[in-house]
Amino acid sequence: MIGLSSCAGVMEDLMNFAEEQQPSSPLANSWSKKQESNKNQKKKGVGGFVLVHAGAGYHSESKAKEYKHVCKRACQRAMDQLKAGALAVEAVAAALVELEDSPFTNAGMGSNLNLSGEIECDASIMDGKSLHYGAVGAISGIKNPILVANRLLSEAQKGKLSAGRIPPCFLVGRGAHDWAVSHGIPPCPSDKMATKFSLSAYTRNKRKMELAEKMDTGHNQTKKRRQSSENENGSGCLDTVGAVVVDLDGNVAAAVSSGGLAMKHPGRIGQAAHYGCGCWAENACNMNPYSTAVSTSGSPFLATEDRVLGGIIVLRCCRCLEAQPSKNIQGILVEFLWSHTTESMCVGYMSAQDSKAKTHISRLPSGTIPGQSLAIEGGVCRLMSVVE
Amino acid sequence: MIGLSSCAGVMEDLMNFAEEQQPSSPLANSWSKKQESNKNQKKKGVGGFVLVHAGAGYHSESKAKEYKHVCKRACQRAMDQLKAGALAVEAVAAALVELEDSPFTNAGMGSNLNLSGEIECDASIMDGKSLHYGAVGAISGIKNPILVANRLLSEAQKGKLSAGRIPPCFLVGRGAHDWAVSHGIPPCPSDKMATKFSLSAYTRNKRKMELAEKMDTGHNQTKKRRQSSENENGSGCLDTVGAVVVDLDGNVAAAVSSGGLAMKHPGRIGQAAHYGCGCWAENACNMNPYSTAVSTSGSPFLATEDRVLGGIIVLRCCRCLEAQPSKNIQGILVEFLWSHTTESMCVGYMSAQDSKAKTHISRLPSGTIPGQSLAIEGGVCRLMSVVE
Repeated sequence: MIGLSSCAGVMEDLMNFAEEQQPSSPLANSWSKKQESNKNQKKKGVGGFVLVHAGAGYHSESKAKEYKHVCKRACQRAMDQLKAGALAVEAVAAALVELEDSPFTNAGMGSNLNLSGEIECDASIMDGKSLHYGAVGAISGIKNPILVANRLLSEAQKGKLSAGRIPPCFLVGRGAHDWAVSHGIPPCPSDKMATKFSLSAYTRNKRKMELAEKMDTGHNQTKKRRQSSENENGSGCLDTVGAVVVDLDGNVAAAVSSGGLAMKHPGRIGQAAHYGCGCWAENACNMNPYSTAVSTSGSPFLATEDRVLGGIIVLRCCRCLEAQPSKNIQGILVEFLWSHTTESMCVGYMSAQDSKAKTHISRLPSGTIPGQSLAIEGGVCRLMSVVE
Repeated sequence: MIGLSSCAGVMEDLMNFAEEQQPSSPLANSWSKKQESNKNQKKKGVGGFVLVHAGAGYHSESKAKEYKHVCKRACQRAMDQLKAGALAVEAVAAALVELEDSPFTNAGMGSNLNLSGEIECDASIMDGKSLHYGAVGAISGIKNPILVANRLLSEAQKGKLSAGRIPPCFLVGRGAHDWAVSHGIPPCPSDKMATKFSLSAYTRNKRKMELAEKMDTGHNQTKKRRQSSENENGSGCLDTVGAVVVDLDGNVAAAVSSGGLAMKHPGRIGQAAHYGCGCWAENACNMNPYSTAVSTSGSPFLATEDRVLGGIIVLRCCRCLEAQPSKNIQGILVEFLWSHTTESMCVGYMSAQDSKAKTHISRLPSGTIPGQSLAIEGGVCRLMSVVE
């Protein structure tokens, strides 16, 4: 998985890139224009900004419409929450539910099957305001793993359990499932979470694996490991979904959810559930004027890995001064970007000023090789709020 | 859990402290004297240094002897491995096995029982040379969780699985148990891992919990959470064991193992299994002349937590020049330290020059309050090797 330190390094680079891009960004221009015209509609504590992705991997042209559509719905869900006065952390969870519910994403419904033909999901969420974190790993039979992670986070914020026990922030496997059900999250039969597509991919992968093992045994009785970087599961299987949100009070939150690698060993935890790896959110404080939220997707952090396939969405924001200073208007400058080394990444974003979300399938420049090339795009947006 | 970033910060502070302490450190003096007298016995690639701890928490005077004894044995086991030419990562695993096997530590045998009266362990190991990492979480029915983590690490180093699948580095629950057994690690009946002490602590904690819940219900039907920092499990239950090792080639490794919090929810993963939280090891490279290994123990990383109870062992080393330069003698300067905010921490350390390990129960200054005060001690040691 991508460690916190590497995240921070990547983020710094990306942010520098974003800063360079700002003056000429067409997104920034169109947004600031929209910003001007909508000024009268703004109210205190209503609005914010959301950026989501439906996976970094390979998105076929034939399914492009579906991926864009789920990103649009996820942005809308988060924005509905923000407009109803929800905090960033609630809005980011709402976006994730929509992304998990799509049978086309590798999260929640339609997740990759593991070696035993079962779905085991990872998800985590972080609240930049409290720095609280909630995560589940290898959880089965729950439709929306992010809701369990979010519930762990909110339960932990209530303080200690009876007899001074520290509440859990990361639960796995059967224990996670049982905790969820005992906290009112309904179980979901596993067969309802698998899709025709995930089942046929499992059958295909199983056959490939058996064939590969038979060939290995034939060639070499000592079971020599394949050092080839060729992943026959296809890079499409690395998909993870994620979202980052800032609300009008400047609170940030980040979340991530994944069905993990196809044909993984039961009990395998991926980076989506790892503290400091799958997502990070941290509000501005005295030491740091920027609030930051990050959600990652990608292949394991291995120093020896030759091709690192991954994607990241980032937002950073700070209070900004208005051109015409006014006591009762506060502004937040939001810089955001997405970047990936996979063939493609489907993103969506929306601010309270937008009537609908913008969606985009970002692709590596043609002729470049996934894992050896990087695509990066972003923009800026200004949020305004009237302080009554 | 303690995030990587906080670790790094703490480490930097501690290292600055160690540097200040070096000139007058009695440990350093005694070691360099021993160093001189033993110079003739040294051989290339034989030796190294190990630092272990048997838990940061509360160590009663009555059990002090036991804790010291297990630390001594753990150091000896690691040193036996190093002297037999093993790499740091193998030596650190050997030390952990000894620490887990003690019924007095909260790791492996004698671990805390969870809410269901079962033992579920976390462990992780990191090799500073390859930066590979192996971890298990909430694993039951395995006598030495660290051996599963170490096996995951070594299997991952062999490269991809059949059909290009990425090998797991973090397995949890039933999946972790089954993987271990299929890789030749024998299962251990749960009742053999519990001790009279852990069983009676469970009964006592269960009674306290029920009483506390009854009182809560009586006082307040809305189930108000106890905000008190009083942890009735006692700080003794936070124990985790760990070790850091450097071999004569300058490779470092770190490992950690824990039974987790008493009365934790089944499936709860603690910091011992978290990437970048429980342990870290990183060999020197072009960008950084220092190799570093760290193992932590302690309460969760919570920004809102008023008392942070934890402990840490650290070693940092670099190649050093000899006072009388010689082509065929190489030296490694090892700085090491332990620090804790808990009432006490039991440590042991040993270099190849020592006939037996030194052990020590470090305590907070009398009259100070755990979580609000910090004890820190350390030393330096020079390892010499003859290059043939």
